[in-house]
This record gives sequence, C-alpha cells and structure tokens, in this order.
Amino acid sequence: MSAAPAIVPPGGTIGILGGGQLGRMLALAAARLGLKCHIYSPEEDAPAFQVAAAHTRGSFDDIAALEGFARACDVVTFEFENVPAETIERIGPVFPSAATLRITQDRFEEKSFVNALGLKTAPFRKVDGPADGSGILKTRRLGYDGKGQAKVADAREIAAAYARFHSAPCILEGFVDFAFEASVIAARGRDGAFAAYDPPENLHENHILRRSTVPSRLSAAQVAEAKDIARKIADALDYVGVLAVELFVARDGQLLVNEIAPRVHNSGHWTIEACAISQFEQHIRAVAGWPLGDASRHSDAAMENLIGDEVAAWRKLAANGGALHLYGKSEIRAGRKMGHVTWLKGSRG
Amino acid sequence: MSAAPAIVPPGGTIGILGGGQLGRMLALAAARLGLKCHIYSPEEDAPAFQVAAAHTRGSFDDIAALEGFARACDVVTFEFENVPAETIERIGPVFPSAATLRITQDRFEEKSFVNALGLKTAPFRKVDGPADGSGILKTRRLGYDGKGQAKVADAREIAAAYARFHSAPCILEGFVDFAFEASVIAARGRDGAFAAYDPPENLHENHILRRSTVPSRLSAAQVAEAKDIARKIADALDYVGVLAVELFVARDGQLLVNEIAPRVHNSGHWTIEACAISQFEQHIRAVAGWPLGDASRHSDAAMENLIGDEVAAWRKLAANGGALHLYGKSEIRAGRKMGHVTWLKGSRG
Repeated sequence: MSAAPAIVPPGGTIGILGGGQLGRMLALAAARLGLKCHIYSPEEDAPAFQVAAAHTRGSFDDIAALEGFARACDVVTFEFENVPAETIERIGPVFPSAATLRITQDRFEEKSFVNALGLKTAPFRKVDGPADGSGILKTRRLGYDGKGQAKVADAREIAAAYARFHSAPCILEGFVDFAFEASVIAARGRDGAFAAYDPPENLHENHILRRSTVPSRLSAAQVAEAKDIARKIADALDYVGVLAVELFVARDGQLLVNEIAPRVHNSGHWTIEACAISQFEQHIRAVAGWPLGDASRHSDAAMENLIGDEVAAWRKLAANGGALHLYGKSEIRAGRKMGHVTWLKGSRG
Repeated sequence: MSAAPAIVPPGGTIGILGGGQLGRMLALAAARLGLKCHIYSPEEDAPAFQVAAAHTRGSFDDIAALEGFARACDVVTFEFENVPAETIERIGPVFPSAATLRITQDRFEEKSFVNALGLKTAPFRKVDGPADGSGILKTRRLGYDGKGQAKVADAREIAAAYARFHSAPCILEGFVDFAFEASVIAARGRDGAFAAYDPPENLHENHILRRSTVPSRLSAAQVAEAKDIARKIADALDYVGVLAVELFVARDGQLLVNEIAPRVHNSGHWTIEACAISQFEQHIRAVAGWPLGDASRHSDAAMENLIGDEVAAWRKLAANGGALHLYGKSEIRAGRKMGHVTWLKGSRG
C-alpha cells in the first residue's frame, strides 16, 4: 500500500475507475476546479471518456493496465465500487480505501459493521445453504438495482432463490415496515472534516430510484440523526470522499441503515442545482485533499431519473423548465439510467 | 452560405471556435445535455481541449483546417468573436451569424447600428487622421480588455495615440458621466424565443472586469429597460445564441449601450450557481436549436475574477465558502483571467 498522496494542485490528474454517468459528472466537477481526469473503463464508448483529458480502456482484472493507469494519476478514486479490494490495495493511493471496500462490498460485513457502531439495520442473518424464514434473500456481494435479490416466504422459496443465485453466499433480511426511504449524502475530507447534505426522500420503482425530493418528510430531529449516522460511519471507516447512506424510515420513526454506497449517489444529483457545491465537486475536493465546500442547500428540489426510452422525450423535457442532464449513452436499454431532470422549487425566481 | 442546420440531437457535436475559459465552460454545459464538443484553437494546450470529446489545433486563417473542422460538427459557434466574418460565412452553419460579426467587430458599425434602433450610446465619431477633441480614442476593430484604447485631451494626444495604433481606423468616444456599469446577458433561440438574465452591476479595474453583482443598483424600471434593449438588439440581428450588452448607467438614469459581445460573457459567470440554467447552457441550447431554459435567478450572487497570480491563493479561496472555478491554464501571466469565484447570498442555507 502506498503512502498518503500529496495534495493534488490545480492542473493535477484525478484517476477515476469506471466511466458511467457518475464518472462523467465527477469529471465535469473536477474540470471546474482546474483538475484533469483520467478515466479507466472497459467500455468502448464510456460516457465519461467524452469529457475527460485522458482515458484508458481496460478490464478491472488487468492489473498491469490498472497499475499503468494509476501511475499516470496523482490520486485514484472510483464511481464503480465493485473493483476487488485487493486490486485497489495494489494500485493505491486510492480514496475511498480498500479497507472501506472490504466492508461495503459484502452485505453481511457491512450490516455487522453498522450494528457494531450502535446503529440499527433490518434484522439479517447469513444464508449458506438450506434455511427457513421469510424476507428478502440477497447475495452478499455484487448486487445493484435489485439484481441478486428475491422476496422469499419459506424454506422452499429460499432454496429456489439460492439456486438461482448459483449458491453464492447470501443474507436473509427481515421485512421492514417503513414509511418511506431517505438517504444521507455526506463527505469527509482527508483532514477529517465532515459535511452532509440535507437528506432527500427517495422513491424506488422496480428497485430503481425514480425520484429524490428535498426537503423530505424527516423531522428536524431525524435530519440531525441521519447526518449523525453518516458521520459515525464515515469516521469509523476513516473515510475520504463522498458516501451515501440509504435509510429506511420506520413507521415508528426509527432510522434503519439499509446500505452504504462508498461513492457519489443517484439520490444526490439534485445537489448540482440546489447547492453551490455539488456532491461531485465535494468528492473531488475530498480525494484531492482540498477543503470541503459548503453543503448547504439554497432551494428545494426534486430529481427524477430518465430510465430507458423515457429519454426519447428529451425535447419536451428540455422545454419544461427543469435542468435536464443526459449522460451521453449511445444505446437505450430497458432499465438503463439515461439521464435525469432536476426541478428547483421554493426559490426566488 | 449553408442552409439552416437541423436541430442537433443528444449525441451530436457542437463545434466551438476558440479554446479558452469560455469555450471550456461551454463544453462543460454541452456535456450536461449529452452533446459532444469539438474545439478549434491555435493554442497547444487550450483550456477547453481537456474537457471536449475532440479538438483541432489550427490557426483562424487556415480555411482548409476550419472547413474540415466544420464538416465534423453538426453546428459551429464561437467563444472568440474576432474570427473574420468572411471565414464564418464560408464554413457555416455558424451561430451567431457572419452578419452579426460584421456589425459587432467594428465599433463604428456597432454604435451606428445601436443608434439606428433608437437606443442611446456615448457620442462618437470616426477618426481616420488628424482630429481635435477629447474623450477615448478606440480602434474600430480587435480591441479587448482595454487594448486599443487611449484617453485623449486634444489634437496632439489624438495624433500620438493614433500613431501608436498604427493609424488603424478609430473612433473618438465622448466621456460619459456614469454612476456605474451594468450588463444584460440574454439568449435568443432559433425560433426567436428570448430570455434575459437579471442584469449584473459590473466593476472594472485596469479595463478588466473585477466583480459582477446581482441584484444591481438598477431600479425595476431600468431592469425592464435593459432587458428590452437586449431584446431589440437580438431581434434586429436575428440573433441566435447568448449575447451580452454592456451598459453605462448615466447619473441621470439613462442607459447607454457601451458594447455588444456576441457570445457568453464574463459578467454572466454567476449564472452557473445562481440560476438552474447557466448562460453557457443557454447558449448551447440556442445554437443546437433546443428550447431555451429558465433564466430566473434563485439567489443573489457576487462573482469575482482571479487575475494573474491571484490564483496562487487557490487553497484559501477553496476554503472560503464560495464556488471556485479554475480554467486549467498552465501559465500564469499578469492580467490573465485564471479563474473566478462566485458567492451566493440571500439564499436559504
């Protein structure tokens, strides 16, 4: 593992593992600060390539290519958190750290870590073979947007889902009777400074984020608690960068941690318009060793994803008064995030 | 001259003549909309190259290179308005048009055009040889940031300045007793739609913009009049894109047109943070044939330029709560615009 990297000055290069929309928006934020980006992605026409000073096309298990990429960068970060932690360790300096990835890449480790901090989660237990119970069976690793998840009611359904997941290690998570979902997007600098955005309320459809709204229905006390949860997690991980903590807001008002995303997050896209410093710039500031920016919100906002062929209506969407973002993806596929729109509300006009 | 170009769809390419900070911020705005940019600049390491999908290095009089560049783009625009109008005509489609450039590239033509619309300017007359009078002697073409301008008090000083300008055609402009300077940043779409931002108040130092502030000291009636001036000019030019109209606010309240900039403008940089749709996105929308966006302002703002070695304080500036923009220029030179900072004020935080 490498020593802590120097502060990256203007003109320096941030390496980003992954070239999707998150990498693209990170690169756009870095450019504002006079920083260059070098994108690493296996894709032929990754959305982030179009806006970065340099890119390398390679797979995430090509250690030689990854090492060459890392040598060309002053510091490396990622938008794609399923790069093996061992790889991250070899090519360092990388923020967030390999130690963070070891925890957040495994649902069992992650929830155990969260509980050990005195924070609540849904009930869960390991499933490595036949088991009884009901809830949601989830693979411990590599799930996203509902992939690797199945609702199960009994031992037979658990066995069927487990077989469908090729007997990968799983957890069985108990149902939570939640009123709504929320998330905290927060940043922690190399110096330990912490800044959290106002938590949005999130609506999912088919396991994909549909809409994020700020302010949420959280009370002021719950907002403070949510930010405190993110701070406890970030401090315990000695985290550097932006992280998102997804929360279930139970009907009795309790906040349960659902998932930690060690990266910028879809539910934080509204920060581009509603805050002077977006989650993307905040992440770049943190990994480059710069001071964090002001995370306060000047306007109420609602962000809605454009999924699959919803993006075909771009002309109408461009005319409706919102801020339209399109990710430069050439191919429309069902369930694929193609763009988003943010509307500002409650602001002086 | 080419026919009017088709609407540029997401994935299409906007060509930008000039690769400085304005081109860079235009490219960043285009990327948000899923549009690619191709930058044309003679510079080896132009700031806009770092954030664009493609670039061509060439001089502004290399017609073959310019034609090749234009063929690779769906539509062409510029951040650098001193490209010869004849060149623009040959490589079209270009927005704004060659006809606009013919007027705005010549101070005498520009002021005559403004007066013909019934709008006021400072008094001015041509100087093509010995002349008497006092005021500011300005070359008719190619001036910026105070270059090609001299304060003159009599015939002897006019002769000296005229000689210094290599006997280039000039105008002699009378002094205006103004209270302050302001500008209107406005956009006109291909469909004739018009949108104007709230006019900032501008402070210049050594002929270079130091600070822009919104709201300005203009009364509501003056704000309406300023926007109306921009609209009259844009309509008369059948303008497409963002233009800036610099104004003198006379002590008696009259608004005098100082200059028309047929491009995005330094005094509009605050729109990035204080509006959902910035001047840069507005310009891209207009030239691409998209609907204009909402130009309303959600926050008060102040923008300050970082000139020359002021940028050395970047770390302190990054920590002071403002939104810092650095332009990716490798070399610091006296009087060179290296970046800017925008502070939002009067917003909910």
